[in-house]
Amino acid sequence: MERGAIREKLLDAAGALMREFDTVEIGILDIAARAQVNHGMIRYYFGSKEGMLLALLDRDLTARIRQLSALLRLDVTASERMRIHLEGILDTYYQIPYLNRLIQLMVRDSSPERVRYIAEELLKPLANAQQTIIEEGISSGEFRPVDPKLFYFNAVGAADGLYCNRFTLSSVFGGTGVADDALHERYRRHTVETLMAGLRKP
Amino acid sequence: MERGAIREKLLDAAGALMREFDTVEIGILDIAARAQVNHGMIRYYFGSKEGMLLALLDRDLTARIRQLSALLRLDVTASERMRIHLEGILDTYYQIPYLNRLIQLMVRDSSPERVRYIAEELLKPLANAQQTIIEEGISSGEFRPVDPKLFYFNAVGAADGLYCNRFTLSSVFGGTGVADDALHERYRRHTVETLMAGLRKP
Repeated sequence: MERGAIREKLLDAAGALMREFDTVEIGILDIAARAQVNHGMIRYYFGSKEGMLLALLDRDLTARIRQLSALLRLDVTASERMRIHLEGILDTYYQIPYLNRLIQLMVRDSSPERVRYIAEELLKPLANAQQTIIEEGISSGEFRPVDPKLFYFNAVGAADGLYCNRFTLSSVFGGTGVADDALHERYRRHTVETLMAGLRKP
Repeated sequence: MERGAIREKLLDAAGALMREFDTVEIGILDIAARAQVNHGMIRYYFGSKEGMLLALLDRDLTARIRQLSALLRLDVTASERMRIHLEGILDTYYQIPYLNRLIQLMVRDSSPERVRYIAEELLKPLANAQQTIIEEGISSGEFRPVDPKLFYFNAVGAADGLYCNRFTLSSVFGGTGVADDALHERYRRHTVETLMAGLRKP
C-alpha cells in the first residue's frame, strides 16, 4: 500500500469502529486490526493514538469548513444559504455521530496546543460562518434578530440529539436506535423546517 | 443522621460531583467523601454503585414526570402548555447537565430489567407527555402537523447542546464554558422562542 493509503485506512477504521460501537473509546489494536495493518503504523503515521484522533477530527471537519467557505460565496439569499448549511450539519452528525464525544475526549487528553487548535481552527470557523449567514439574514430582513451564538447550540444540539442517543431513540421509536437513511431524511427535513421557522421574521 | 438523610446526601453528592467535573465517571470513594459518610453506606442503601446511579436518575426524572402530569391537567392552550414544558426541559438540563450521559452509562452497565425500567418508566412517559401536547396543538390548529417523535429530539438536543459541551461553549463564548444563570436565562428564552416558532402554524 502507498503511504497515504495506509494513513487513510487507519482513519477510516477508527471512524467506522466509533460509529459501530457508539463510543470513542476504541483501542489501537482494534483500529489496526480493522485497517488490516500492523499497529506500529499508528505511531509511524500519527506519533500516538491521540495524534491519530486529532487527524480524524481534522479530516472530518476541515472538508466541511471548506464547503462552508464555498457556501458563503454562493449567490443565494440568506434563507437559502442557511437551509443548505443546516442540512449540512444534519448530514455531518448522521455520518459522524461521534463528533462531540471525540471533541470531549481530545480536550480531556490532549496538549494545550492541540486543544487551542481544535478551538481556533475547527470550532470557531464553523460558528463564525454560521454567524455570518445569520447576520446577513437579519440585515436583509429575512431573519428575526436572534443571537447567532445561542442559535448555534440549537442547531448543533438538534443534530447531535437524534444520532447520539441510541438508547433514547430506540425507547421512543423502537428498533435498534441506529438511524437509517429514511429516518435521517425525515429528521433532516423536519429539523431544518423547525429551525428555519425559528429564524424567520414573522 | 436519619436513614433518609444519608440516602439523600449520597445522591446529592453524586449529582454535585458529576456537575462539577463534567463527567458521570465518578468513584464511590469520592461520592462518600463528599457526602461525609462511610462508603459502605452506598452498598447499604443502594446495593451497588449502579443501584445508586439508578436511584439518582429516578429521583431526577420522577419529580419531573409528576410535574408534567400536572401540566397536562392545567386549563391553558396547547401553545401555553408547550411553552411551560419547553422551559422545563431547558431548566432540567441546566440543573442536570449529566442527564444523557448518565442514561448512556446506565444502559451500558445495567441489568436488562433496569434498562427496561429506564425506557418504560422514565423516558417513555416524558416523550408521551410531549406527544400529547403536540397532538392537542395540532388538532386545535395552533401547531403545524409535525411528527412529535422527531420534535422530541429537537427539544432535548437543543437543551443538551448548550450545557453538555463546555469546551465548545468556551470556544464560542469565551470564559469557562460553564453556563451561569444569566446565560441560561437568555438561552432558555431564545430556544423556547425558536422551537415554538417551529411548531406554530404559519
